[in-house]
Amino acid sequence: MAGSSIGTIFKVTTWGESHGTGLGVVIDGCPAGLALCGDDIQRFLNRRKPGQSRYATPRREDDAAELLSGVFEGRTTGTPISIAVYNKNQQSKDYSEIASYYRPGHADFTFDEKYGFRDYRGGGRSSGRETIGRVAAGAIAAKLLAELGVTFTTYTRSIGPVQVSDDRFDAEEIGKNPLCMPDALAAENAAAYLDACMAEQDSSGGVIECVIHGVPAGIGDPVFDKLDAALAKAVMSVGAVKGFEIGDGFAVARATGRTNNDAFCRAADGTVAKKTNHAGGILGGISDGSDIVLRAAIKPTPSIAAPQRTVNRDGEEIDISIRGRHDPVIVPRAVVVVESMAAITVADAMLVNMSAKMDGVMKFYG
Amino acid sequence: MAGSSIGTIFKVTTWGESHGTGLGVVIDGCPAGLALCGDDIQRFLNRRKPGQSRYATPRREDDAAELLSGVFEGRTTGTPISIAVYNKNQQSKDYSEIASYYRPGHADFTFDEKYGFRDYRGGGRSSGRETIGRVAAGAIAAKLLAELGVTFTTYTRSIGPVQVSDDRFDAEEIGKNPLCMPDALAAENAAAYLDACMAEQDSSGGVIECVIHGVPAGIGDPVFDKLDAALAKAVMSVGAVKGFEIGDGFAVARATGRTNNDAFCRAADGTVAKKTNHAGGILGGISDGSDIVLRAAIKPTPSIAAPQRTVNRDGEEIDISIRGRHDPVIVPRAVVVVESMAAITVADAMLVNMSAKMDGVMKFYG
Amino acid sequence: MAGSSIGTIFKVTTWGESHGTGLGVVIDGCPAGLALCGDDIQRFLNRRKPGQSRYATPRREDDAAELLSGVFEGRTTGTPISIAVYNKNQQSKDYSEIASYYRPGHADFTFDEKYGFRDYRGGGRSSGRETIGRVAAGAIAAKLLAELGVTFTTYTRSIGPVQVSDDRFDAEEIGKNPLCMPDALAAENAAAYLDACMAEQDSSGGVIECVIHGVPAGIGDPVFDKLDAALAKAVMSVGAVKGFEIGDGFAVARATGRTNNDAFCRAADGTVAKKTNHAGGILGGISDGSDIVLRAAIKPTPSIAAPQRTVNRDGEEIDISIRGRHDPVIVPRAVVVVESMAAITVADAMLVNMSAKMDGVMKFYG
Amino acid sequence: MAGSSIGTIFKVTTWGESHGTGLGVVIDGCPAGLALCGDDIQRFLNRRKPGQSRYATPRREDDAAELLSGVFEGRTTGTPISIAVYNKNQQSKDYSEIASYYRPGHADFTFDEKYGFRDYRGGGRSSGRETIGRVAAGAIAAKLLAELGVTFTTYTRSIGPVQVSDDRFDAEEIGKNPLCMPDALAAENAAAYLDACMAEQDSSGGVIECVIHGVPAGIGDPVFDKLDAALAKAVMSVGAVKGFEIGDGFAVARATGRTNNDAFCRAADGTVAKKTNHAGGILGGISDGSDIVLRAAIKPTPSIAAPQRTVNRDGEEIDISIRGRHDPVIVPRAVVVVESMAAITVADAMLVNMSAKMDGVMKFYG
Repeated sequence: MAGSSIGTIFKVTTWGESHGTGLGVVIDGCPAGLALCGDDIQRFLNRRKPGQSRYATPRREDDAAELLSGVFEGRTTGTPISIAVYNKNQQSKDYSEIASYYRPGHADFTFDEKYGFRDYRGGGRSSGRETIGRVAAGAIAAKLLAELGVTFTTYTRSIGPVQVSDDRFDAEEIGKNPLCMPDALAAENAAAYLDACMAEQDSSGGVIECVIHGVPAGIGDPVFDKLDAALAKAVMSVGAVKGFEIGDGFAVARATGRTNNDAFCRAADGTVAKKTNHAGGILGGISDGSDIVLRAAIKPTPSIAAPQRTVNRDGEEIDISIRGRHDPVIVPRAVVVVESMAAITVADAMLVNMSAKMDGVMKFYG
Repeated sequence: MAGSSIGTIFKVTTWGESHGTGLGVVIDGCPAGLALCGDDIQRFLNRRKPGQSRYATPRREDDAAELLSGVFEGRTTGTPISIAVYNKNQQSKDYSEIASYYRPGHADFTFDEKYGFRDYRGGGRSSGRETIGRVAAGAIAAKLLAELGVTFTTYTRSIGPVQVSDDRFDAEEIGKNPLCMPDALAAENAAAYLDACMAEQDSSGGVIECVIHGVPAGIGDPVFDKLDAALAKAVMSVGAVKGFEIGDGFAVARATGRTNNDAFCRAADGTVAKKTNHAGGILGGISDGSDIVLRAAIKPTPSIAAPQRTVNRDGEEIDISIRGRHDPVIVPRAVVVVESMAAITVADAMLVNMSAKMDGVMKFYG
Repeated sequence: MAGSSIGTIFKVTTWGESHGTGLGVVIDGCPAGLALCGDDIQRFLNRRKPGQSRYATPRREDDAAELLSGVFEGRTTGTPISIAVYNKNQQSKDYSEIASYYRPGHADFTFDEKYGFRDYRGGGRSSGRETIGRVAAGAIAAKLLAELGVTFTTYTRSIGPVQVSDDRFDAEEIGKNPLCMPDALAAENAAAYLDACMAEQDSSGGVIECVIHGVPAGIGDPVFDKLDAALAKAVMSVGAVKGFEIGDGFAVARATGRTNNDAFCRAADGTVAKKTNHAGGILGGISDGSDIVLRAAIKPTPSIAAPQRTVNRDGEEIDISIRGRHDPVIVPRAVVVVESMAAITVADAMLVNMSAKMDGVMKFYG
Repeated sequence: MAGSSIGTIFKVTTWGESHGTGLGVVIDGCPAGLALCGDDIQRFLNRRKPGQSRYATPRREDDAAELLSGVFEGRTTGTPISIAVYNKNQQSKDYSEIASYYRPGHADFTFDEKYGFRDYRGGGRSSGRETIGRVAAGAIAAKLLAELGVTFTTYTRSIGPVQVSDDRFDAEEIGKNPLCMPDALAAENAAAYLDACMAEQDSSGGVIECVIHGVPAGIGDPVFDKLDAALAKAVMSVGAVKGFEIGDGFAVARATGRTNNDAFCRAADGTVAKKTNHAGGILGGISDGSDIVLRAAIKPTPSIAAPQRTVNRDGEEIDISIRGRHDPVIVPRAVVVVESMAAITVADAMLVNMSAKMDGVMKFYG
């Protein structure tokens, strides 16, 4: 298995290479009757489109999604939804140089080791363009979840040393700056930091935070399919992610039981709630009804213009300098990718959960 | 699906509750012909046994593994290996109190929400005892991997504020102190910190680090089944884990491309190697031949003696104080659990990888 | 993967060998809250017990099922249900002869080819005793389905040349004769036929028919997971089954569209029904609300006392004569096995089906 | 899960509707380095193309396969192979009539029951055109298997009452007559029979037989993933199949142990062989090195011109008469579909089998 599928009920399979004919995705198991049109998908895809600011590659990627199956008279039919995006930006470029050596921080070497050769054009299957299928599927998962009252707030938490301040947190701001930060001042400072990186032919990492609102208590399974474990896999499977946290994450290592436990309380509406949310909305792998809060650490773009040392396919050490149009930071464009993976995971978990109790099963069939 | 299975080829299914008849695991897909005996499993189980120091619950858990199937004349047969551990320590205790309320930081509330009721005796399925099946399976995975030259060094990286020092790192020390730290001085300081926590009726979190040696380049799959994503899921599925990192992890967020990229070089034996290992041994989801380095953030034991606020099943707010014999820190006993999950994941990935190339397939059948 | 798991939501994993410590099964994904006790399982197991007539091996198999997990206060908890049956009948027999050659019609040779060696004691994993786990799981699936109005009538359709007559069909009769035939006269004739087989040191095949009542329309999935395809896999996976039919089965090959199409009609209660049921209750892989009718062809017991030609492990041709206590016909004892596999399959399909429509999903979460 | 995926390592996912934008398939897990071009796929697709004789619908389906990903420089890359066929033959036909009622023998009613509505244009997802994806995947599986020495002979065994004679069996003949029969006289008689059916506005069923040559002993898994069970599922998942047999199939029900057991013998080359092949090449779910022989019963085309009784969506009984260009018999065009499903199943089983023994694993990684 080449590992291009994810999900138990809401099952997503992506395909495609950076510079092949196209990329796409098949979503199997989306319930029938969901209103869906090409625009729903395009809106999500546009959020990852490059060329929207000076902090993203100026490459034009006119990624137009074609809906090939699974939708009839404006609604999903319950059968597989196939979506393709054709690669229009395939420059008839000479790739012989890139084919001959291993770019540091890229998957060139590991693909060669695994498969014996690789599609070296623009990274092939390991390119960031692979996320197009994820985002198209994420758009559908998010639409499905919106019907169930589940929504997302996803943003850049930090870029290099520049952190968003909780005091200035303003969700409205996320869409207003090209760095997707919910804090105008942080966005300004991060822009300045990126300018400095670019001047140095360098790139920056950062952190993405995703808050999932409205997931009812009881979603996720104990043991191996814990909701946080499933989210971890989904998010860590995004190319540049090197770390994943839920709730307080690594900060729990320095916490104590007294500070880290969230006291249960009685909410105004009589339901059970928590006074704090160190747990990030998941206890024992199952959602507790609070917001689910997760973070992903994104590494700096490995493609930098500065000279680097590497080896070629003959095993000789050489100096290279990567040309071309690369994002100085991946974080802002990856925001919608992280949100998509979270949406796919939660949608699947909510569908799987429907058979958890005999009560629910008997009401369904009663 | 209640989520109790993991793996594609090397498939692990656990079962059992803390205070039911027993706990166990079925491992399906272990290759035939691996030398295996009960002792191989018992040795791993003993590493998670409580009662071995004052920093672990004094509860006696005489967990004796019974090998019920899948081994004949000292070797695995290729059919499912079933292992059971019977619960001998079931005190005829009154659980009615614990049944009536939701312990903060535990899964009592979420299980009730999901299933309508729960086995409240000692946490039931969400108890730390659930990891017995994981560790038994991990013992087999580790034995299999050892045959292939893959070994593990796993230890406590930090407890509360006390970090292991890289300068004093001594792998030999791990087995010598009850906190599994590769640094005698850190272990001493951590012990003092835990004494203080215990005096305050409090508990501590920490970080576990696992280094996997000898994984050949080419293991893991692109896209959703990246080796780091699979490791993230496996490790995050352990009860108290709230964060996961590979290589530099969250530190990449502040790094730049220049500092984070690992230059490739030519090793003494002519193979391709990396000068540094910020990537933690995985590029594009596929192992690169370097050590694989991962970390898990473990939350403080939620069962603390200090009084806590919560609600009961009727939704009334009450004060509780959890009695009983609880670990002041989970970290040392979880070291072998993290190692087990890593071993299960790598064993599966290496078996899955065998069909990656036609060359390999044709040599196998040729 | 050694292939010991089946099901997507209602997931069954069996383990164990004929003459090892025991055999068992883990059922993961059974909804919480189903009333269940050991007797529910034992009743099913008793239906496959040998020694109940002269047409079954006189071997005593006192298969007592132990319920090890997943049930609390008389109801399933939603977590894995583990059931074990210990082998009490392990005669300290000399198996060296059986180990040295390949019994015709058995899996001795193919296990050796696949795994390099085999647990030769009584057939090991390929023994009919492997079905104990299936039947224990089937008992739970059948209990779950009974709550949803789904019931089974399963019986011997033929033994050798002796067919049940539709005119004399009497469901009450199934439990009254040792051959599980719904036709007393056929049972008598079949008994006479078996007596003749036994006198010749020979054995007989037969056909099992299973009718599933009460499955609502809409269960099963199009394409690869068609309900009939899933039933085919489940039933064909039973050791001695060599053929599978749904509805008219192989007779459709000689039918025409006019005779084979089932006209839709309006039932008395206003719902849509079919005037005939050539389709066997499934159209396009999805249940149509009629009875589901399936048949399995069971081969003659391969262990016969008559002399047979075979080869030993050294590749020499030899004559053997299989001693011991073998069933002259497998069919009657396999009736409950086929019913169990059908129940597991339908239970899984009904749970999977719950997320087929947005209507259902929204009502569930609404 | 809408059930559109099959396979563990060699994983096939199909999508598409009869009269939507197109149909296609994603094959994930094909080993890297297999020589593959569009022609390999087109050749298989052409075998199921209609309009090739008077016994197939005169509809023109110019199904041109586009290879969208997973192949680079003429070889598979190990990443998903995406293939699409666009629907060019979408007549701007009025489907309102077909939308209003349920065609007997079709999935119209069951889709409506499951999903609440359906894509009624030409059968939508339940159309025979859905097999395009299967055949494209089958072409790749067959190419892969050919490299390993596995080949197929698949043909029409019977049409209505007309059977192929074993005495006249001539594999060369299969490609020479439009009915794919390995017996010229039978083909002639079957043609006459079909002429009579067509004159009666009726259709015919038949049987397809598939012989798989060169599968080494040891392929397939015990218990639920037996090779014959996997083949049964794969073949029964083809739309019109109502029965499945392996080896002697239903004839075993009348056989005895003496007649049905295949004696093992020593082959000329010193290996173990069988004197007969009643088992059809599989013992205990694992291939025994003999030819694998399977048969599928195909029902008569349900779309017949003769008037039929049915109900409309309002539940009223009406008379209908299906217009249009329908195959009087599905069998000849389904030959390549059955072969494709068999090839997909065997390819997957052979890849899965690579990790069955430690010997093999250690040699691979040694």
